[in-house]
Amino acid sequence: MHTENPDHAAVKPRHSVRIDAVEALRLLGEVSLGRLVFTRHALPTIRPVNHVLHDGELVIRTHEGAALTSRARETDGRGVVVAYEADSIDPVTHLGWSVVVTGYALPVTDPDELSYFRSVLSPWVDGTMDHTFRIRPDLVTGVRLCPPQGA
Amino acid sequence: MHTENPDHAAVKPRHSVRIDAVEALRLLGEVSLGRLVFTRHALPTIRPVNHVLHDGELVIRTHEGAALTSRARETDGRGVVVAYEADSIDPVTHLGWSVVVTGYALPVTDPDELSYFRSVLSPWVDGTMDHTFRIRPDLVTGVRLCPPQGA
Repeated sequence: MHTENPDHAAVKPRHSVRIDAVEALRLLGEVSLGRLVFTRHALPTIRPVNHVLHDGELVIRTHEGAALTSRARETDGRGVVVAYEADSIDPVTHLGWSVVVTGYALPVTDPDELSYFRSVLSPWVDGTMDHTFRIRPDLVTGVRLCPPQGA
Repeated sequence: MHTENPDHAAVKPRHSVRIDAVEALRLLGEVSLGRLVFTRHALPTIRPVNHVLHDGELVIRTHEGAALTSRARETDGRGVVVAYEADSIDPVTHLGWSVVVTGYALPVTDPDELSYFRSVLSPWVDGTMDHTFRIRPDLVTGVRLCPPQGA
């Protein structure tokens, strides 16, 4: 048997503490990078993107916009349910926090709003045209990963 | 309008380069932290977990096991399609890489295998009983985020 990266670093499990929604959104506002999760062709899909927090909503720009926009149309403008995760977790100790927001992603179409968001939110990568979406957080959960108790 | 974290750090978009599956799995084997993505109660769900790469399969331990195990039973043992993302992206420059594996998650039930995986893979957090799953990578994609061209 061949295992490439045995994870012996932390034998004792971390202690997880739930974060309330207010604290979770505050942490989300401190970072600019997260991961957009949605269903595409019935498969779970995840893409790293960047975000800003604006008037309590999460605003993102993504090249996956075409998939989300066509789905939004199908749903009579209700939008598509997505999850958005951001975290700050140490790659070795695995201590830190993780926040997940679930809500409807709606395309931003107002020209003034688009112009504004493009000024505060840089595109993720070059290439194909991107789309701007707002996600209203319907469900916000978070955990803080703390050192094992008794350590 | 109030925007909490304008992302002015990188005005020029990053340049993305596709990574082939071999390189993507190699990168995945270099880190122990990733994010499991699946559908739960028809909602996209994402949880940070840790992993090892074992004989070309991804092995994880997760507290979300109950949801995945019951779904695996419903599918006559075919398992549940999940996505697994790992990345190493600089929080400020957003340079680095991201790899996504899509495949069926199957519970590990063999006692010897379970014992072995528990020795090389520490549980993510304390608390409720965890489950061990193997994910056979059916689809492996990756991108490397490089500095903007001409920068």
